Amino acid sequence: MLFFTQCFGAVLDLIHLRFQHYKAKRVFSAAGQLVCVVNPTHSLKYVSNRHAVGQTSTEQGSLHSHHPLETVHDPQLIPCMCPLFSCQWEGHVEVVVSHLRQTHRINILHGAEIVFLATDMHLPAPTDWIIMHSCLGHYFLLVIRKQEKYEGHPQFFATMMLIGTPTQADNFTYRLELNRNQRRLKWEATPRSVLECVDSVISDGDCLVLNTSLAQLFSDNGSLAIGIAITVSKVHAAEAEM
Amino acid sequence: MLFFTQCFGAVLDLIHLRFQHYKAKRVFSAAGQLVCVVNPTHSLKYVSNRHAVGQTSTEQGSLHSHHPLETVHDPQLIPCMCPLFSCQWEGHVEVVVSHLRQTHRINILHGAEIVFLATDMHLPAPTDWIIMHSCLGHYFLLVIRKQEKYEGHPQFFATMMLIGTPTQADNFTYRLELNRNQRRLKWEATPRSVLECVDSVISDGDCLVLNTSLAQLFSDNGSLAIGIAITVSKVHAAEAEM
Repeated sequence: MLFFTQCFGAVLDLIHLRFQHYKAKRVFSAAGQLVCVVNPTHSLKYVSNRHAVGQTSTEQGSLHSHHPLETVHDPQLIPCMCPLFSCQWEGHVEVVVSHLRQTHRINILHGAEIVFLATDMHLPAPTDWIIMHSCLGHYFLLVIRKQEKYEGHPQFFATMMLIGTPTQADNFTYRLELNRNQRRLKWEATPRSVLECVDSVISDGDCLVLNTSLAQLFSDNGSLAIGIAITVSKVHAAEAEM
Repeated sequence: MLFFTQCFGAVLDLIHLRFQHYKAKRVFSAAGQLVCVVNPTHSLKYVSNRHAVGQTSTEQGSLHSHHPLETVHDPQLIPCMCPLFSCQWEGHVEVVVSHLRQTHRINILHGAEIVFLATDMHLPAPTDWIIMHSCLGHYFLLVIRKQEKYEGHPQFFATMMLIGTPTQADNFTYRLELNRNQRRLKWEATPRSVLECVDSVISDGDCLVLNTSLAQLFSDNGSLAIGIAITVSKVHAAEAEM
């Protein structure tokens, strides 16, 4: 009898999961899009000296200013810190992907268009939702951060960074799209390089910013579905055609 | 000699104006779009009892809940307050347009797609930029408000409201689009009815929200160009075809 009850429970769980998956797929109508469920990774503990580094890079003018270390001949050998705020790791750009995968257990998705489903949006700030995205011959890092810039008023910041140099990043355009409750919000920009700190991008506010009420309007059962698309930017596509 | 100097000055002014106009037109690439330069109208003085009215309508659930007064047979005879916060005027929906035009000197633009160029974005909060927009047989009110929700951190809130009932508003979709510095931000939603207070829409945060740094990235010489498009919403268009 206990066996049958457990079987019945398992079947119910499967139906529930199938329903959740169906709901997630339904959010974006384009056929064949990959839906990736992303759980919050960790609450970040802000380290004061890393913060100072982030602020300094902002002051230097992070609006796609070329990184001084880009003079290194092979871009893969440029020294790079872990883009996650809580981590003190340092290495070369070429090994950032394996560091993020192995140490932080961040998944890699493949395909130019995917749907990122961030769960448990109600968790207190600071919280991060992170995935890596492999397409067009590069790796990209998508970060959604819940943070209280103004005490008691958490906001969501979403940005995409290229795991590569600012010059490489300039070749691409990324799009983040929210679509629910008869509302649609689209953000398109050139990805920033992972050589700039994620935190400086967020403190600049140069990313998709959502206040809590808007995040609630776009979320379904505490999960926020964000459609992601990466393309080669038009200027560079035109140059390639010439 | 003085005459020639003045003539030369006037010609320079004309060239400058022409250049400003050209720059504004260049923001959005679609040919034949109307660019409307909108100066800040006034700094609003918040009246506490009007604020209470706004809050009550929010508590009643302003997410397109139908207005109790929609039971009045002719929608043009529904009692309506002036949608601007500082004004105590009350009248019927049919005379709101003439009130806004005559008392508040708000201009009316015609055409389904226009560019709204809000000037002097540096002015301290609270400040409003307002126009009326006539298309598809209705009048719409576009409001950009600079407001400090969190002290010392002004934000820009942009929304479009139909001068009509919530049921009429449900037939339309409006789009606001910012496009500059390799960044593009699009907001699409159903307009809210002017019977709901502008302030309740903004306090709900159910509109396009820009922090100061993002507004600076999108603005040019202190002016923010917003592309506006209004369409009949797909559901209603499909019903009309049947």
